[in-house]
This record gives sequence, structure tokens and C-alpha cells, in this order.
Amino acid sequence: MLLNLAPSLFAPGLNFKPLQTDKLYDVIIIGAGPSGLTAAVYCLRKGLKTGLVSVQVGGQMADTSGIENYLGYRYINGMELVEKFREQVLQFGIDFEIKAQVRSIEDGDVKQVHLEDGRAFRTRTLIVASGKQYKKLGVPGEQELTGHGVAYCSICDAPLFAGKKVVVSGGGNSGVAAALDLVKLAEHVTLIQRRDHLTGDKLLIEKLSAYQNVDYLFEHIVTQIHGENTVTGVTILNRKTGESFEKNVDGVFVEIGLIPNSALVQGILELNEYQEILVDCHCRTSAPGIFAAGDVTSVPFKQIIIACGEGAKAALSANEYILNRAD
Amino acid sequence: MLLNLAPSLFAPGLNFKPLQTDKLYDVIIIGAGPSGLTAAVYCLRKGLKTGLVSVQVGGQMADTSGIENYLGYRYINGMELVEKFREQVLQFGIDFEIKAQVRSIEDGDVKQVHLEDGRAFRTRTLIVASGKQYKKLGVPGEQELTGHGVAYCSICDAPLFAGKKVVVSGGGNSGVAAALDLVKLAEHVTLIQRRDHLTGDKLLIEKLSAYQNVDYLFEHIVTQIHGENTVTGVTILNRKTGESFEKNVDGVFVEIGLIPNSALVQGILELNEYQEILVDCHCRTSAPGIFAAGDVTSVPFKQIIIACGEGAKAALSANEYILNRAD
Repeated sequence: MLLNLAPSLFAPGLNFKPLQTDKLYDVIIIGAGPSGLTAAVYCLRKGLKTGLVSVQVGGQMADTSGIENYLGYRYINGMELVEKFREQVLQFGIDFEIKAQVRSIEDGDVKQVHLEDGRAFRTRTLIVASGKQYKKLGVPGEQELTGHGVAYCSICDAPLFAGKKVVVSGGGNSGVAAALDLVKLAEHVTLIQRRDHLTGDKLLIEKLSAYQNVDYLFEHIVTQIHGENTVTGVTILNRKTGESFEKNVDGVFVEIGLIPNSALVQGILELNEYQEILVDCHCRTSAPGIFAAGDVTSVPFKQIIIACGEGAKAALSANEYILNRAD
Repeated sequence: MLLNLAPSLFAPGLNFKPLQTDKLYDVIIIGAGPSGLTAAVYCLRKGLKTGLVSVQVGGQMADTSGIENYLGYRYINGMELVEKFREQVLQFGIDFEIKAQVRSIEDGDVKQVHLEDGRAFRTRTLIVASGKQYKKLGVPGEQELTGHGVAYCSICDAPLFAGKKVVVSGGGNSGVAAALDLVKLAEHVTLIQRRDHLTGDKLLIEKLSAYQNVDYLFEHIVTQIHGENTVTGVTILNRKTGESFEKNVDGVFVEIGLIPNSALVQGILELNEYQEILVDCHCRTSAPGIFAAGDVTSVPFKQIIIACGEGAKAALSANEYILNRAD
């Protein structure tokens, strides 16, 4: 999902304007998911000259059917929470480029952010909060039914499938951990794995095998997801025989991993083996004055409330960095 | 502030019961501020046998006049946010000891939490989220007017004093940083320092000196805070002459530091020079199976949203620890 903008974001009179090429920003934030938006609130409250550049607003929050683990709301719809975050940022007035694809960044004492459209902006510090994206199956029905039975985050969404039938696509650690979250709640779980065995941690696999309400389809893949307003079934292909069959289910968890949106900083910032930006506990990266927060970083556990906390840390670290420079 | 319990917490029918001495818990959380309550939600959603032990509910949130930097709420009263967190925990049903002072904890494969009343509880993991407390002036009026003009957190509360007259008590880094937050917004700031010079960072002091709306009273202290429902003034003592005088102000920021509530784990967990529990980016302490989160730890910047993120991390780390053990 690249663009999930609420149409109201473009309503006239909203409190934001484009970034200016002739202004020296204190901080430019790349990404407007939970960590980027939280960083923006903290930077603006500190009185920093703040710019926000993003292809979309809300990040993975906007993909989530319902959120039950964001403290302060027992239950809130993903897009509703995005709206609340967005309003909280816009109350201050901000220089905000949306639908803006960053082409490259340039490090230095003054850093530069180059957009695809050719414009470039100058800033004293940068906060990279460009997030991660779930790998998609890329099959018919997946995109249309995301948030309506197709889910990517078992920690977030498993409780919504209590008493229901689900398939989990993926037999690595994400798939097995998701199945383990689901067997405790769902009526039945079918784990579908492309390979002929599970590749998740042995201990996780053992724990899963203790449950009666899970079965496994090895060397199978999901080729289509069915449903009008909500998922009703999937088409499954047996890779050995080449035969396909349909299965009625209420949900599909796609658990084939995530990709950090870190291509932009490759060669500029140190990344870990998962291509995540390496940060310390202050959200500092390997380059002075460049901070990073949220799912694009090496922070453990990808959760909204964690991303928010990291966004606040990155903002306060950027503020400290600016305060501690003599200029 | 030790007890700031909303009376409704004791209403009959609420979804919690005391901890049981004969039960082996997966996790016991010590402290019910933002990090402890977030940890509880994450542990309960993971299906862990969870106990929560605290002297009070809400931690420093309950001290805060108004919160404008918790994402999801443009403005919310401290106690209102506490209520929302509390409800979110209690929806699951939890073993919860409130007004419970922990006397000691015992490390080991199974850990033990001993209460002052003699009861002891057994658990496989522990999350220490016992928080920090602001050092108080200990003068008449301070306690009564906390949240009504007496504030401790300039990041949280400075914007509430826009256009007003305030005093800041404390000339170390907290005091100077608070004054720097306030001069940009308040009509006038008086910085009151017990010693004959400021002890904050030189750079911060220089930045503050650029403002016209701040003055300094060295070798002075606040001896009383006046006001019926809200702060109207302070009594200030000149320590050199021994003379006192009154000053009309709308707010008092007490910025003489914070003390982590870490006495409990001294000798069990590694602490830093500020007596904070040393944690890594996964909220792991120096003892396997003991995690810590929030203001009691070495995490930078003491903010509600950060404490929440850390609470979630600690819970997910505890869950991972349990999953990875063969028992």
C-alpha cells in the first residue's frame, strides 16, 4: 500500500503548506507513520523548524483492521487513529509534503533531501521514519480485502479472529509465531507453507504442535483470496501435483516477512543484516545529526505504541543535538 | 505523591482480584504507571498469567495538569488518561494488588515478590516499572496545588503557561532547560536558585540569557506557594539576608531533579550513576528473566509515550524469554 490518504487530508484550509527550498530547517522527518507523526509533534512543541515529507499518511496503521493495543483506546479503527495523529500534528501548522517520494538524501553539516520532482530541501538534522512494508502475496483479492479479513500482524489482529477459521501463509518464524498467536483464539488454523517443512524456530514449532486445532499444508501456496466485503475463502495450489482447490475461511494472515524502506539511506547509514537502520537507545544512527525511528530501524518488536515512543526519542535527540551545537 | 487512586478503582464488580500466593505467574509487573499498564495489556493479550503490584495507579501521569503530547489525544487531563489505561487493562481481568508496597524481590529461576504485609508471590519473569518521583520542595501549598499551577515537567506543561508569569525553582540542567522551554511561551520567567550561580550546561545558560523575559534570583528559595484553587503567588526567602517577600505568579515549576524508585532492586540489578536500572534496547536488565521499563530505567527522556513503548517492549521481551525456555 503506497497511498492510503484520507481524502479529507486535501481539504482546503488545513494547517499545512509545502516545504520551502530557501529555508534551512532544524529537522526534516521522512515518513508519516506513527513514529514520524509523533516525532513531528515533539519537534513542533520544541519550536523547531520542522518539515515532514512522506508518500502517505498513517503507515501500517492504515492497514490494520482494528487496534486494541494502543494505550488510551480499548478499540479504535486504524484510519481513525491516523486521523487523530494527523490532527494533532496539523494543529501546530507544519511544512508538509505528501505524496512526496524522496529520491536521495545527502549527508553533511547541512543535510539535503532531494525529491523525485527535482526540489531539494536543506536541514540541520534528519529523522528517518520511513517504516517497513509487509511482503505481499501478490494474489487477486489480497489488496481489496486488506483490513477485511486479510491481515499481516498477528499481535495486532489475532484477537479479532476469535472462534473463526483462518489460514496463515508462511512457515518461517513470522508464520509459526502468528499461528501460535491464533491457535489460542481461533476455531481452526491452517498453516500453508511453500516449502516441504517449517523453517521457524524449533521451540516455536514444538509449542504449536501441542495444539489440536492446527493443520499444515506443505508445498502449497495461496493463489487467490475470495470475498465480497470480507474474506470467505481462498484458492490453494498444491505445488507438487499442480492441482488447486478452494477452502472456506474467515481470515488470511500473510506472514512472509517485512521489508524495511531503507534503500534511501544505503551507503549513508549503517544497516543490520535485515536492512534495518542500526540505532542506539537514543535513536542515533551512524551519522551525526541523522536520527531514525520506528519500524525502519533495528528496534525490537514492530508495534504502533513502540514506534511512537521511538519517534518521541528521535525528536528529543534531534533537539538535544541542535542545542549542543554552538551555532 | 504516593496515593492518587481514583475512588472508582475500588468500585465493586471491577474486573480484578488479588494475587494468589499458590499460583506460579508467568510475569509480575511492579508499578502501574504508563509503562506498567502498557506492559500489562501486552502480557494479557499474549495470554500470559499476569500479576500487577503497585502502590498507586497512573504514576506521574496523575500529577500532570494537562497532556498535549500523548499521540491520539490533542489534549487530555492526566487522570482521564489514567482512567483510559486502567479500563484497558481491566477489560481482560487481572490479578492486581493496589496500595501494595513491595518489600523485596528475590531472583532465581522462579522469582519471588515479597510484600510489606508478608505475602509472597512466585513468577517466571518480572517487569520492574516502578517509575521515578520528582523531588519535591516540601513547602506549604506544594502538594495541594500540584496540577493546579504547580508543575514538575516543562516538556509536558510549559504550553499551558503561555502568556503567564511563572517561577522555576532550580538552577541545574532541569531548571535551565525548563526555563528555556518557558521563556518562549510565558510572559515572564523568574529562575530561583539556591546557590550563587547556575549549574546547568553552559550552552543552555547562554541560550537562556538571550531572552529578555527572564530574571534570576540567586541564593533564594521558595518557602511557600499560595493560592486557593490555582497558584497565585509564592513566598521567596533571600538566604543571604534572611528576608522574605511575596511574588505574584501563575505557576511554579519545581525542577530540582527526579529520584528513580530503584531501591528495591539495589544489589540485584545493575544501576547507572543516576540509580536508574540499566537496560538494553530490549528492556533486558543484568538479570535474565527480569525486565524493566519506563522512568526507573536508563531510557533517555522521561515521557508518557516513551514509557508506554518501553512497557510494550518489556512485555514482548518477557514473552519471548518464556517461549524460548524449554519448560
